[in-house]
Amino acid sequence: MEEKLMRKLGSGSLDFESYFSEKALDMKASEVRELLKLVEAGDVISLAGGLPAPETFPVEIIKEITEDVLAHHADKALQYGTTKGFTPLRLALADWMKKRYDIPTSKVEIMIVAGSQQALDLIGRVFINPGDVVVVEGPTYLAALNAFKYYDPEFISIPMDDDGMRVDLLEEKLEELRRQGKKVKFVYTVSTFQNPAGVTMSLERRKRLVELASEYDFLIVEDNPYSELRYSGEPVPPIKHFDDEGRVLYLGTFSKIFAPGLRLGWIAGEPHFIRKIEIAKQAVDLCANTFGQVMAWKYVADGHLDRHLPKVIEFYRPRRDAMLEALEEYMPEGVKWTKPDGGMFIWVTLPEGIDTKLMAEKAIKKGVAYVPGEAFFAHRDVKNTMRLNFTYVPEETIREGVKRLAEVIEEEIRALKA
Amino acid sequence: MEEKLMRKLGSGSLDFESYFSEKALDMKASEVRELLKLVEAGDVISLAGGLPAPETFPVEIIKEITEDVLAHHADKALQYGTTKGFTPLRLALADWMKKRYDIPTSKVEIMIVAGSQQALDLIGRVFINPGDVVVVEGPTYLAALNAFKYYDPEFISIPMDDDGMRVDLLEEKLEELRRQGKKVKFVYTVSTFQNPAGVTMSLERRKRLVELASEYDFLIVEDNPYSELRYSGEPVPPIKHFDDEGRVLYLGTFSKIFAPGLRLGWIAGEPHFIRKIEIAKQAVDLCANTFGQVMAWKYVADGHLDRHLPKVIEFYRPRRDAMLEALEEYMPEGVKWTKPDGGMFIWVTLPEGIDTKLMAEKAIKKGVAYVPGEAFFAHRDVKNTMRLNFTYVPEETIREGVKRLAEVIEEEIRALKA
Repeated sequence: MEEKLMRKLGSGSLDFESYFSEKALDMKASEVRELLKLVEAGDVISLAGGLPAPETFPVEIIKEITEDVLAHHADKALQYGTTKGFTPLRLALADWMKKRYDIPTSKVEIMIVAGSQQALDLIGRVFINPGDVVVVEGPTYLAALNAFKYYDPEFISIPMDDDGMRVDLLEEKLEELRRQGKKVKFVYTVSTFQNPAGVTMSLERRKRLVELASEYDFLIVEDNPYSELRYSGEPVPPIKHFDDEGRVLYLGTFSKIFAPGLRLGWIAGEPHFIRKIEIAKQAVDLCANTFGQVMAWKYVADGHLDRHLPKVIEFYRPRRDAMLEALEEYMPEGVKWTKPDGGMFIWVTLPEGIDTKLMAEKAIKKGVAYVPGEAFFAHRDVKNTMRLNFTYVPEETIREGVKRLAEVIEEEIRALKA
Repeated sequence: MEEKLMRKLGSGSLDFESYFSEKALDMKASEVRELLKLVEAGDVISLAGGLPAPETFPVEIIKEITEDVLAHHADKALQYGTTKGFTPLRLALADWMKKRYDIPTSKVEIMIVAGSQQALDLIGRVFINPGDVVVVEGPTYLAALNAFKYYDPEFISIPMDDDGMRVDLLEEKLEELRRQGKKVKFVYTVSTFQNPAGVTMSLERRKRLVELASEYDFLIVEDNPYSELRYSGEPVPPIKHFDDEGRVLYLGTFSKIFAPGLRLGWIAGEPHFIRKIEIAKQAVDLCANTFGQVMAWKYVADGHLDRHLPKVIEFYRPRRDAMLEALEEYMPEGVKWTKPDGGMFIWVTLPEGIDTKLMAEKAIKKGVAYVPGEAFFAHRDVKNTMRLNFTYVPEETIREGVKRLAEVIEEEIRALKA
């Protein structure tokens, strides 16, 4: 419908489609973003989003920091910066990663990007040849699929369980590929509190994955936006911590620990890899926004980050708990869900035969929205799953939302049996 | 040398190059950026940069705006935004372009990008198929060549004179292509105070270019970062002003009229084209930094931009004058240069036979740096030109820099004759 409207708006004589590149003709809008547009109208409780709660933004700290930056660093903060990023920020992040994760930053270089979404695109650009095998989790982060897809990889999807990616199944796949004379270019994993599944890769599997990378000669892209948001359980070190050979490209972001509106993330990796990604970034946008980088530097280096994080965690924990409790209370038999120790999402699996994409419209009519799981699978071959977000709406709304959702699901299950 | 150092730094067992995509193996660092690194050391006057003077940044206004934004719009400014950009900013820009250039914004949609460099990359992504013909000016903006190159176009370079692109020569080329059954995908032009040449396309040529676009069915990418920086002469409307059919994609930027550190630019174009570029941007970085967008909105909508611009102009005019006077005073016979009415650059042409790339090292030894012109030509077939910047260093330094440069050139001319 929107496409039609567009044609109408530009009702000149141009045949717009005829100018697009082949690849552009294939580009589709993100389904999640399109769905969210629908939800904006009416009394719909949205568990579909992926936004942090604005209440967690450190507004007072940011006021203090911007005053400081404009008083003492305006010349730098308002000027073009180097492509690799603002050096004091890069150093502060190196310190912080060393302290927090014991990642030996002497062998690691850090570059700043415009949010980790840009890191995904640049990694696609620098590493993927058409046809290259890229391993992802099933389900995996939707926007990573979108970013990589442009570069025409062959995706292999490895199932997950409560301990994250089934590294044993990965190994079988690697063996199979080896027999075919094929290699994997990289394995992409959201290692901790995965988006969308909420699960965390176990310590054992992390170590094994690094061994396999060496044995079968592939790289690992570890996307880690959520690990700071831990509400229960024991921390697990990032995969990067176990990386002796420089095979892991680690992606961090300020979106969940500072503010997404600054669009800042970073890549920590082997200097030779970083150098090439830096050159790719030059052609794409010259540098990340400097003002935000100088702010982020003060935020990390002056200890605001470490002081603010506990507040974010205390804010989100009751929401996570509320959703888990409501699922327990309302969901009919046959429905399963993950129990995340942190992050922003819970993954729900319905009985086989229910298509959550078809169900979504009914749910919106009943006043609740979720993201159908299909798009999170590289091959779109799983229909009965959904992602729920628990960070954006308050506890009571979460309870009401889950209750409404349970009613819709109950009807579907009844219809299935009929 | 740097490459060697990198290998050494990452002296593990990995063969880094083996992981890169074919395209990444071809990626080279921007020569200008590399040159600028050399210049940082020692008593070298750099006329090589392309930076605005930090003295022109409206720091006091920015202080006021950030306070306002954090007090009243923090929730929006710190959150993820839509890919198309912050709506109040898009509307404010539409108003401003209507008022300033009489561009009928009812038929035009505006989207926000991370600086116009990102616009160039996204336009490459959305429009260029490998082998598509892209017309550029000779010389043209270096970073545009870099951005487009990734998408493998065939570049055709049209010479310039004091009235900008030789549209008559373009027409000949179009005829020739037509005979070969070929079409041009788009013409890329920095229409006003061009980077690097400093010249402005005449009114007549603008109109003719739009006619040709219709006649030969191509698009026009009008990159217009400098037109607000006019120090003399009469304003010329942008090419977009003459665009009835929706063939012109207009690129604006806040880098020269606000602050480059915010990394914000915009594309104004036919809604159907904008829609596709928006989808491309989703995969690349989700959205431009929201905090900066809300700041830019206040800057435009509250009239700060219109009040601040005259100050920037008054600041730069004496620098432009100083450089023109110094060139007149010091340059030996046989050297020619452009006389820009605005912008940031003057283009110098030396006698045939002098290679400014070879001369650059000698100049740096004599304490002055410039950008050799070769890299600004799509086919690198012109060796005797250079770009000088007059916005970054003060008048006296400009005079001294040009004097040093003239001495180097004089020696070269002598050597040429010997």
